[in-house]
Amino acid sequence: MSESVEIAGGTFASREGKSAIEEGLGFAPKFDADGLMPAMAVDADTGQPLMLAYMNEESLRMTLALRQAVYWSRSRKEIWHKGRTSGEFQDVIEMLVDCDQDALVLRVKQRGGGCCHTKRATCFYRRVALGAGEGVVRLEGA
Amino acid sequence: MSESVEIAGGTFASREGKSAIEEGLGFAPKFDADGLMPAMAVDADTGQPLMLAYMNEESLRMTLALRQAVYWSRSRKEIWHKGRTSGEFQDVIEMLVDCDQDALVLRVKQRGGGCCHTKRATCFYRRVALGAGEGVVRLEGA
Repeated sequence: MSESVEIAGGTFASREGKSAIEEGLGFAPKFDADGLMPAMAVDADTGQPLMLAYMNEESLRMTLALRQAVYWSRSRKEIWHKGRTSGEFQDVIEMLVDCDQDALVLRVKQRGGGCCHTKRATCFYRRVALGAGEGVVRLEGA
Repeated sequence: MSESVEIAGGTFASREGKSAIEEGLGFAPKFDADGLMPAMAVDADTGQPLMLAYMNEESLRMTLALRQAVYWSRSRKEIWHKGRTSGEFQDVIEMLVDCDQDALVLRVKQRGGGCCHTKRATCFYRRVALGAGEGVVRLEGA
């Protein structure tokens, strides 16, 4: 699953100054202690949430360059170009970053049968029962 | 900002068995090594992404019981009942969990002026320029 791709030439801005991070126009992504940041993929047309995964710097640069979602697989500990084996690529239409630049939203066109490895269109196919109930907190189909 | 709230009586399901986690109807949330899981808040009506934050077990239980978003502030290292000081509560209309139960989506009604501390309606107010450019990767207003 490992893949060699020319990394985008662009550089990232420094993270000096709260104002520059929040109001500036230089991309200054913040990675956590493991070198990762969360990326939420949503359907570009409907806004439906599809999946939440993580990117390290290399996979983020690949995503920017390829305009396809590339994540870091925490379980396999490797670059994960989604769709490379299944054909279920995510073409990135738009990438958004939040105020403190430590989270991403990808507006994607999902190719193939669906986003989830369970063959569903989205990974978020169950709803959590709200309220202060007794016993095990229940899920139901979303 | 600390708050004492009766914790919901419900228990969480065990995380034994991939099939039960992916197809079962017991809520078995997975927290990371820091005891956290990511939660993406989106507008319940429009689906617009609002913010991405984290919950620990206590804040997740508070969210379920109160039907309002309660996060764990990683910077302040404390429970963060959003809106408690600003009035900008997030009423949770629906909570979704993903296939492996390690990420949440909250469909919320955002009260008050907006979600973001910068006074904007959403934290995701900038777009990242795609492509393999030269120089610093640029942002633009979303």
